[in-house]
Order: sequence, then C-alpha cells, then structure tokens
Amino acid sequence: MMQTPLVLTDFVKRAERYFPKKLIISRTSETMIHRITYKEFGQRTRKLSEALTKLGMTKGTKVGSLAWNHHRHLEAYFGVPCAGAILHMINIRLSPEHIVYIINHAEDEILLVDSDIFPLIAQAAPLLKTVKHFVVMQDGTDLPETNLENVHSYEKLLEEASDSYEFPDDLEENMPAGMCYTSATTGFPKGVVYTHRSLVLQSLAIGLADSLGIRESDVAMPVVPMFHVNAWGMPFAAVNFGTTQVLPGPMFNPQLLLDLIEREKVTLTAGVPTIWLGVLNEQERNPRDLSSLRVIVCGGSASPKGLIRAFEEKYKVPFIVGYGMTETTPLVSLSTYTTEMENWSMDDKINIRATQGLTTSLIETRVVNENGEVPWDGQTMGELTVRGPWVADEYYKDDRTEEAFKNGWLYTGDIAVMTPEGYLKITDRTKDLIKSGGEWISSVDLENALMTHEAVFEAAVIAIPDEKWQERPLACVVLKEGSDVSKEELLSYLEGQFAKWWVPDSVVFLKEIPKTSVGKFLKEKLRNEMKEYQL
Amino acid sequence: MMQTPLVLTDFVKRAERYFPKKLIISRTSETMIHRITYKEFGQRTRKLSEALTKLGMTKGTKVGSLAWNHHRHLEAYFGVPCAGAILHMINIRLSPEHIVYIINHAEDEILLVDSDIFPLIAQAAPLLKTVKHFVVMQDGTDLPETNLENVHSYEKLLEEASDSYEFPDDLEENMPAGMCYTSATTGFPKGVVYTHRSLVLQSLAIGLADSLGIRESDVAMPVVPMFHVNAWGMPFAAVNFGTTQVLPGPMFNPQLLLDLIEREKVTLTAGVPTIWLGVLNEQERNPRDLSSLRVIVCGGSASPKGLIRAFEEKYKVPFIVGYGMTETTPLVSLSTYTTEMENWSMDDKINIRATQGLTTSLIETRVVNENGEVPWDGQTMGELTVRGPWVADEYYKDDRTEEAFKNGWLYTGDIAVMTPEGYLKITDRTKDLIKSGGEWISSVDLENALMTHEAVFEAAVIAIPDEKWQERPLACVVLKEGSDVSKEELLSYLEGQFAKWWVPDSVVFLKEIPKTSVGKFLKEKLRNEMKEYQL
Repeated sequence: MMQTPLVLTDFVKRAERYFPKKLIISRTSETMIHRITYKEFGQRTRKLSEALTKLGMTKGTKVGSLAWNHHRHLEAYFGVPCAGAILHMINIRLSPEHIVYIINHAEDEILLVDSDIFPLIAQAAPLLKTVKHFVVMQDGTDLPETNLENVHSYEKLLEEASDSYEFPDDLEENMPAGMCYTSATTGFPKGVVYTHRSLVLQSLAIGLADSLGIRESDVAMPVVPMFHVNAWGMPFAAVNFGTTQVLPGPMFNPQLLLDLIEREKVTLTAGVPTIWLGVLNEQERNPRDLSSLRVIVCGGSASPKGLIRAFEEKYKVPFIVGYGMTETTPLVSLSTYTTEMENWSMDDKINIRATQGLTTSLIETRVVNENGEVPWDGQTMGELTVRGPWVADEYYKDDRTEEAFKNGWLYTGDIAVMTPEGYLKITDRTKDLIKSGGEWISSVDLENALMTHEAVFEAAVIAIPDEKWQERPLACVVLKEGSDVSKEELLSYLEGQFAKWWVPDSVVFLKEIPKTSVGKFLKEKLRNEMKEYQL
Repeated sequence: MMQTPLVLTDFVKRAERYFPKKLIISRTSETMIHRITYKEFGQRTRKLSEALTKLGMTKGTKVGSLAWNHHRHLEAYFGVPCAGAILHMINIRLSPEHIVYIINHAEDEILLVDSDIFPLIAQAAPLLKTVKHFVVMQDGTDLPETNLENVHSYEKLLEEASDSYEFPDDLEENMPAGMCYTSATTGFPKGVVYTHRSLVLQSLAIGLADSLGIRESDVAMPVVPMFHVNAWGMPFAAVNFGTTQVLPGPMFNPQLLLDLIEREKVTLTAGVPTIWLGVLNEQERNPRDLSSLRVIVCGGSASPKGLIRAFEEKYKVPFIVGYGMTETTPLVSLSTYTTEMENWSMDDKINIRATQGLTTSLIETRVVNENGEVPWDGQTMGELTVRGPWVADEYYKDDRTEEAFKNGWLYTGDIAVMTPEGYLKITDRTKDLIKSGGEWISSVDLENALMTHEAVFEAAVIAIPDEKWQERPLACVVLKEGSDVSKEELLSYLEGQFAKWWVPDSVVFLKEIPKTSVGKFLKEKLRNEMKEYQL
C-alpha cells in the first residue's frame, strides 16, 4: 500500500477542490459578519503560510495564537501546520503569568493576536523570551498604537503575499502540527503536542455516522473556543468534509448564539454545559426557531439532566454528552444511543445521555482500581485510563509526564464507573472524590441530583475534613434568580435518591461557584474558601 | 501522541467488548441459517487463530480462503490477520488454471475451503506447490471423502482449540493482512497485498456519515462476494461498528436476497448491477417489504439509469454507485449527493447517482490526458489516476507493477470525465475505448443509453476495425424476454442522444454477453467473437 501520510494539507486541498463555494461564516466583532468561501479560505490560508514563512517561520517553528473563533484563526489552524510549523493555541483565559510561561515554554517565535487581546500581550511583551513577531488579527490593515517593534497587520501580510504558495509535499504524519497547554492542579500548565496523524484520525472519528457524523450538509458552530483543545476537532473535520462553519467570534452571549442558530440554520454545535444552560434560559424567555439543529454536543464537565431533558423533550434536539481532555485531542467517548436503547423509556434514555458515553472507534478505555478493570455495574469506581492514536504519550518537556503516562496508558485523574452497557460515567476528579469512612462518595452524582431541583441553578459538592470519617460532603448551592429553598428541603430531596451516608452534612448557599478558565468548577478554590467551615 | 498502530485486532476487541449480543446471521447452505453473536464470533475467531497456529501458521504465513459469504469466512477475515498471518481471499470464479497459479504465486500454506468447492481443490491439489493443510468449512465435523492428506474439519479444529488464545500485541500497522488477485487483460492474475493500516482506514472511511455511514444500528448484507476485494470492506467495518451482518452464503438468487432483506430488516446492502437487475425483476413480480433498506450500494461496472430510477423513485431506496478496484481496497468514490443538489430535478439527481461519484476522504483522484488534468466539463476524457493510504503501490512480485504504478499514482486503466461538480464518471476501460477518426467514443455511455430502452436487457458496445476511421462502434444487444425491437429502431433511439459519429454503425442481437468472473462484460472475448463481423 502507498505510504501516503495522514496530513492536514489534504483537508485544505479537499475543501478547495470539491467545496469551493461552501461558506465559512465568521464573526470578528459584535457587528462584523464575514462570509468567505472555502476557495477564498484556501487562498488566504496559502497566503498566510507564505507570509509567515517570510517572517521566518520554517518547519518546526512554534506560532502562538491568542484568538477567538473566527475565520482568521481557522486560517492559522491550517496555514501554520500545512507549512510544517506548529500552531500553539493559547488559552486566553489563563492568568497573564501562565500565558507568559507557556509562550516561553513552547518557545513561540510568532504570535497571532486578536486586536482586543493585543493590549494584554503588549504589556507582557518584555517577559516573552522567544517571540520575534506579533501579527494582529483584525478587520482592515490598521495597527493598534504600540511601542512594540515587529508588529504586523494580518490583513496587510496577506495583501502582500502571492497567490502561488504551494504547501510542502514532504510532511510526515508524525510531525507535530499543534499544541495546547492544560491547567495543572499545582504549578504551571502542561503542554500537549498534536501530530498531523492524530488530528486527521480524530477528524475521521467525528465524521463517523456512529459519532457526531459531521458531514458536508452540516452547518457546524463550535462554541467551544478554538484556543481550547482544537475546538474539539470540529474546525479540522469541517474543512475536510466541506461543512459550512459558523464561528461566533469574541464575547458572544446566549442571545447571539441563538440568533446565529436561527439565522444560519446551524445543525451541529458544541460547547460546555454553562453555555447551554445560558442558551436554554434565553430560549425559554425568547424562543427562536431551533428546528435546524440536529445535535448539540456538550462536554468539559458533567451536564445536568434537567438541561439534557429540556433540549431533548421540549425542543427535540438530541443533546449528546462527550468526554475528552487536552491530552486526548480530545474525543474519547460520546453518549450516543445504540439499538438496544431504542425502546427504552425517556428517563432511561436521559440517564444514558448524561453519561460520558460509549468509547469511540480506535480509542481504548479502562476504568481500573486496585483489582484491575472494574465490573460494569454502574457502581464500582476506578480511575479512567485511555489509549489510542490521538492520545498523548507525554507532556511537552515536563517532568510531570511520569505521573500521568504509565504502561502505555494515560491516567486521566478522572474517577468513573462503567454502566452495564459499557458507557463511561465520570463520578469525580481523583482529587475531588470524597473519601468517607473508607468508602468513596461521588461529588458529581450529588451535584447532578441537586441540579435537578427546580430551585437550584448550580451546585458543587466538596469534601470537608471530618475527625470521625476523614471527609464528609458539603453542598455549595447557587439558587436560581427569585427561587428559594431551605437547607433541610434540599437534603431531604437527596435522601430518597442516595444511601444515607452519601447525603451531604450541610448546604451553604453561594452567589456563584468559582470556575476555571474553561467553565469547570474550581473546587480547589471552593475547598480553600470553605476550609474554616464547621459542619 | 501514542504510536498505537491501526490494526484489525482492535476491531475484534471492540465488537467483543461493546457489542457482544449483536448478531451475525449467516447462511451456509440453502437451508441452514446460523445466528451467532459477536461474543461467539470473538471466541470462534480466537479459536481459529489458535487452531491455525497449531497447524503451523505464523507471522507472514499465507492462508488461502475459497469460500462464500458466511460466518466462518468472517472468522477467517480476522482470525488469520489478527494472528499476524495473511488471508489470501481467492476468487472462486477464476478458471482452475488461474486458481492454481495464484495459490502457488502467493505461496499459500493452508487453504480454508467451503465443502462445495473442495472437490475442485482436491482435483487441483497435485499442482499446489506450497499447501500443507486443507481445512474444510462446513456445518458439523464430517469430512468429505478424499484421498488427500492433511484435510481437517474447520469445526473440529475449533472444538479442539482452547478459549484462552490472545492475539499478539506486537502487530504493526504496515504488516500485510490480506491479499486479492485481480484479472489481467493478458496473462495471469495480479496480486495486491492489503495492510492492517489500509483496511482499518478504509473501514473508517465507509463509516463516515458522508460515505456509506455504516453504523451500529445497520443490518448490513454484503452480496458482493467475500472473495472479491474484501467484500468492499463491509465485513471489516461492520465488526468495528458492531453492525448486525447478514451473510447470504452460496448460490443465492434474487428471491433469497429479497427474503433476507424483508425478514432480517436489512438496511444496507452492496453488490454489482447484475445482482440488482435480478433483484428488481423479482421484486416487480413478487414484491417484498423493502422499507428497512436505507441504501443499496452498487459497483463493479456501470449501473443502468433505469435500475437506479426504479429503486430511487418506485421503492424510495437510495441507490448509490461506487467506484473502486482490487488495487484500491476498494473504496475510491461514491455517488452521494451534496447540498447543492438538494433542489435538483429527479432526472438531474439520477444523472449524478449514475456517476462513479465524489472522491472519498483521504483519497486523491485525477483524470489526466496528455495536457494534464482534464477540465471539469463532463466531456473531456482522460485516464483516472488514484492515490491514497489504501491504494496499492505495486503488484505482488510482478513485473507488471511498472505499467500501473507511476510517479506515486495508480493508473487505473479506466477512462473517465469529471462533471462540473467534481464527480467521476467512468466512460470506458482504456482498452475498450473506441477511437474513431482521432476522437474518443465512450462505449459505456452508449451502453447506458441502450439499456434505458424498454426492450433491452443488456448491451455492450465494442470497437470494430474500420479502414477509414480506424475503429467504429458496434452494439451487441440482449433483448428482454418476449421483447422485440429492430436494429433501425435502436439506432434511431440513440441518434437523438449523441453526436452522429458516436452512433454505432450496426447492432447485433445476442443471447448473452460474455462476462468475467465478477459479472463485468468480457469485451475482449466479444471483440474476438466479432472479429469477422462486417459492418
């Protein structure tokens, strides 16, 4: 068989060749909507490759991006790796200190920066040890006022580039193509390097009919940021399949997302639960036509069943929960149904949807405890381990590699059970698990149950030190606006659903739950805040 | 990223793990229907690996199969390559001389043979230079009467094998997994070796929503023989996705296929046009419930538009034409629709369906003539060339490699045009093209047009030597039973549809068109038979 490599270049060429008229709809500010065709995308991507090459980009150069979801970022998704360089997608929600660290650690030489993020970077510039050029992504060729040298206008660079750039044809599939850093429990973020092979294979995986089935006829809107784990791979796959893309730009809100869904007839969209909670709220107040939607994908943290039920029952939109992490490119599993579930009750189906789902083709998962793989009983907890061709085997130049990568498996730090059907169900992070009297209590299960209560907006359950039981659960609850419920009512609401010793010892009501840069509960902070709490 | 290899072993493990209760429905004779689960399939496959290992199979051993579509053949599809050996699927419709040649050429050491094919092989046995063991595939453990030594019962071997066989975990993705031989215009068949990587990648490709979208909820019936180009990859993909399989066994007829479709609620089936012509005929006479069918896949030779129209319009079954060859594993393209065709007329849509379709992900195609790639005008003919990770780069130990593999591309020997939408349309084999007065005439286009005439069952158009024009077309026509039409009527039927110089000079009526072992017109034979014909 031919040793044709699996490289992203083929995706651009396929889009240019077979889908030149299909559209990328991109929002770069609150008012600017750009519509470019895949033909134009191809030309602009080639120009970007040429322009960056002129700035000194060569094979293996790291190019950082600090940008929202828009067509220029998409051009960078291909223009950088297809020239043999590496796109380092920088999470702009990290602290400035961490952003400086990862740019230096990755040794980025060029930064592609959205105009609204540029001031932050300009300020940090003296600390950046390897950056030689700043390219400002904005409409038009104006440049922001700055004392920095080597600041370029993205559009000006493209204007000056020729049309004739050809991607190098000697790329190998195991060459690095992208990088993301993921927050660590302690210390600086850890880097993961994606190869062309891993990104191509994952793109095929999300095109499978039994997965997201992303296809030419889709209108795909990744709400998950393009600076976060490849926007779950959607932009890569969409280019290969010639899918219409809607990139919602900076500072979007639920209203804007719903407007885009209705106006652009979005069929497939993906984001974290917080996004969909907000969208659901807005939709209840001011309903839009959601009939174009074929699937909402949700991941990043546990999805409340009430959220799933609302979309599935009321709006008839399949709401699929997925699991993955920066280390896994990220697709590991999706809560799609199998035929055995066809005649299940709605309740049972929603229960399946709320799991992290069935492991995708080419990926292996095992939930393991000290006895090996846990039984598929929906109860026995263990740590989720993952293996496969788009799973990292190390952190980039980082000693913490050995904590997570053992015996050819990635140890995810997530605690999970296996349902009898073989679906993964995350019950906790290793570090968030509550260990009470030698037994494990899942904070996520308790949170999900609390969030089904009509008065509860959000709930986080954390461990509080306890002399007798080592740890006991404490529920931290944010109520819905205008709602009211007592501590006792909430606890008795849980009593029917869990073993007595699982029920939290108390409830505290908060205005908000602290969250990470990507919207996950920041339980470490919560535990610190509650350190002094007396049960 | 982890260097997890793309190997077929993962498919078996996935089916065993996630789809143990799903069924393989297999017909081994006209009366015997076997239903085994994927759990049993996994056990039997592992036992087969062990049993063949005991017979001397080791890494790289070639194991030939001479078998119809049934569960034992499916077990061999995995039990041989997952043990590191190579399954040589032997086309039982080749001449005995060619069968002997390819067994010797491949150096098969073990043959897995259906009981009804065994007498043929027993007779040829003295000519087989490398075969050490014959394993007879049939229900029960009886053996046919024979003087041959080393004849084993498949079921007996499995009975004696243990349950504990583990597939080797050191397989590499570029290791050979399978072999098929393809007929050559002259000389002996040419061998193609498939690797684990090529078979895994093609399996993903046919699982894509934009391709066949084969999925867990499908009931897939490959009618295309498992001895012919991996049964177009369906059995491999079906195991990975946990798809229910219906394997129709030996000596099936249209009636049996329709019975299986209706009874087993087949959703996806694949075969050559001759099969679907027969099925359509039978359905018209004795209609069955076809409502379970989601798609019929047709390939191997051009599909008459009348056939496509009947299934699409009358029976509401999408009828997708595909293109591929032994050298391409085989999937190259499929005549699926894109969004731009949504509002097209039925006629225009049928015209698209009748093309060989849009090139699939990861595969590159180019139709080239002496000026390079042909324009996408639906008219300019050139030779189709193909490149990609499941395209062969050589014939196995064969000097004819250099005729077909040039500059990294496979030269298919098929003449094609490109439609304005980028769909491939095969107009001829290089050797069947009619060259008249310096211009090319497509025999396939003329045949397709003739076959839309209500009196015509089959038509082949061939070149006849001509003093003035070098060659002129002659139509060879088989009429439908009880139909009648004159030569003049048929020619005037064509006159409205083609340039005057394309219209054949005459028509001869035949009882049948000679065909190859896989149902394609044997035009070389026809040309020889017509050599003396005077226009």
